[in-house]
Amino acid sequence: MAAVRARCVLLTGSNRGIGLELVRQLLGGPQPPTHVFATCRDPEGPRGKELRDLASKHPNLVLVKLDVANPSAIVSAAKIVEGKLNGAGLNLLINNAGIFTPVSLETVDSEEMIRAYKTNAVGPLLMAQAFLPLLKKAAQDSREEGLSCNKAAIINISTLLGSIERTPESYFKPVISYRCSKAALNMLTRCQALTYGKAGILCVALHPGWVKTDMGTQEADLTVDTSVQGLLSVLPILSEKHSGMLLNWKGKTIPW
Amino acid sequence: MAAVRARCVLLTGSNRGIGLELVRQLLGGPQPPTHVFATCRDPEGPRGKELRDLASKHPNLVLVKLDVANPSAIVSAAKIVEGKLNGAGLNLLINNAGIFTPVSLETVDSEEMIRAYKTNAVGPLLMAQAFLPLLKKAAQDSREEGLSCNKAAIINISTLLGSIERTPESYFKPVISYRCSKAALNMLTRCQALTYGKAGILCVALHPGWVKTDMGTQEADLTVDTSVQGLLSVLPILSEKHSGMLLNWKGKTIPW
Ligand SMILES: NC(=O)c1ccc[n+]([C@@H]2O[C@H](COP(=O)([O-])OP(=O)(O)OC[C@H]3O[C@@H](n4cnc5c(N)ncnc54)[C@H](OP(=O)(O)O)[C@@H]3O)[C@@H](O)[C@H]2O)c1
Ligand SMILES: NC(=O)c1ccc[n+]([C@@H]2O[C@H](COP(=O)([O-])OP(=O)(O)OC[C@H]3O[C@@H](n4cnc5c(N)ncnc54)[C@H](OP(=O)(O)O)[C@@H]3O)[C@@H](O)[C@H]2O)c1
Repeated sequence: MAAVRARCVLLTGSNRGIGLELVRQLLGGPQPPTHVFATCRDPEGPRGKELRDLASKHPNLVLVKLDVANPSAIVSAAKIVEGKLNGAGLNLLINNAGIFTPVSLETVDSEEMIRAYKTNAVGPLLMAQAFLPLLKKAAQDSREEGLSCNKAAIINISTLLGSIERTPESYFKPVISYRCSKAALNMLTRCQALTYGKAGILCVALHPGWVKTDMGTQEADLTVDTSVQGLLSVLPILSEKHSGMLLNWKGKTIPW
Repeated sequence: MAAVRARCVLLTGSNRGIGLELVRQLLGGPQPPTHVFATCRDPEGPRGKELRDLASKHPNLVLVKLDVANPSAIVSAAKIVEGKLNGAGLNLLINNAGIFTPVSLETVDSEEMIRAYKTNAVGPLLMAQAFLPLLKKAAQDSREEGLSCNKAAIINISTLLGSIERTPESYFKPVISYRCSKAALNMLTRCQALTYGKAGILCVALHPGWVKTDMGTQEADLTVDTSVQGLLSVLPILSEKHSGMLLNWKGKTIPW
């Protein structure tokens, strides 16, 4: 099975769960990237310990402090990454950071709606804005035809729970603030594909499955290892025909 | 053509555009409601003049101050309306207030994303929460079978621009903050249908067409009169089979 050959990759929320496993498997793959920028809110604190341990073994792993709910922190992180890339572009931006609060239509309030939207939808938008020059650079420097994750791509980690069409199947979990924010993220992905496609950047939303992480709980279907193996085997098959779509960890399209 | 026979109706953003025309045509219909609660941000200021003129001729028109981006104002308005209803329920809540800013992926910022979300998605959510007891009352008091606008309904005025599927057709207007907020409103509508349907409340999202208002501009396809005639002829045909769907002003389903 082909592996993704993106040279420079950046991930958000990479200190635990799916983000951390993506970092691990990217570093352990047959052709590891030259730079993996693993960003998280607190790389130097206790929550960053596993990333720091990894970094001590992998000189191509760079930890960067980044809270996706903080617009100015996103701009600062982009400057730091640009400095470290030293003229090279960023091939792959994975917007993975996300929050999930078990609230229903009865219990949710305005603050929770906005909090979820800021992290799950506005964060990915601002990340793409700030890293756009580096993504464009990667697209320009690539000799590949068409769109691909090896060349330049934005992957937004979304969810089946953001599919409006399929809501009735999973409504035993109302999680209204999460669903609304992820439906908006899906809209964002489609708009990004239309805007950034012209600059050679692929934009796709991926559903990782229901995964055993702090968010998914131990009741979930998939181990984080299986989910991430799936996600990483979907990345290399993505092309212009997938841009602006929502796919699951097996590469199957999910309706909006 | 059947007209809607909802006895008590409440609308947001009813001082101009589609909201004002809905008020006019509801009052001028063959069987006008016993109460039309026309809410707007400033019923006593210059922006409320047309509503005040109408109220001087229609004793069943009640003006209520309401900013949908202000959670505590929503709760206060619900108390006022409850008092005026004097034990009766609210049959029809029309979440019409909305904002539209011409921003693209390049120009939008976090504040604008949140501002649009607050008014276009969170406002309708909080409105339904606050008016839920009155909507439930109307459903309980009704002798009609099934779901209908005559019995108890929430109509969220959404837009084709909130359809993720159909985004490529209209992307000459990126309006990213608007699109994301309305995709979230569509998700909200579907969730409301699943939660509130059990209490006898119909929940539908309607696209009014592209309408000549301040928002739609004079380049738009439809006069506000034509759009509102269309919307008001769709309301009486809505039943459980439409609950949780997005329809246009002619009653045609729009994909998510
Ligand atoms: N698990 C599932 O079943 C499942 C299913 C569908 C989709 N997803 C999606 O997959 C992604 C990862 O989920 P997960 O299961 O790995 O969740 P998780 O175990 O709860 O981890 C969430 C990660 O996001 C980070 N994060 C949260 N808010 C952040 C912020 N403002 N700035 C930066 N980082 C932030 C967390 O960092 P801290 O440690 O600092 O909190 C953590 O690293 C999310 O987008 C989620 O919606 C998960
Ligand atoms: N026109 C179109 O082509 C079109 C197409 C699709 C969907 N729509 C939707 O139709 C609805 C009505 O649009 P329109 O064309 O009539 O727009 P409009 O002419 O711009 O009028 C908007 C109305 O919403 C009110 N409003 C805005 N923010 C509010 C808030 N925070 N609280 C209370 N009221 C608020 C405005 O009140 P103020 O006077 O106080 O500002 C005004 O009454 C919107 O939801 C819009 O998204 C319109």
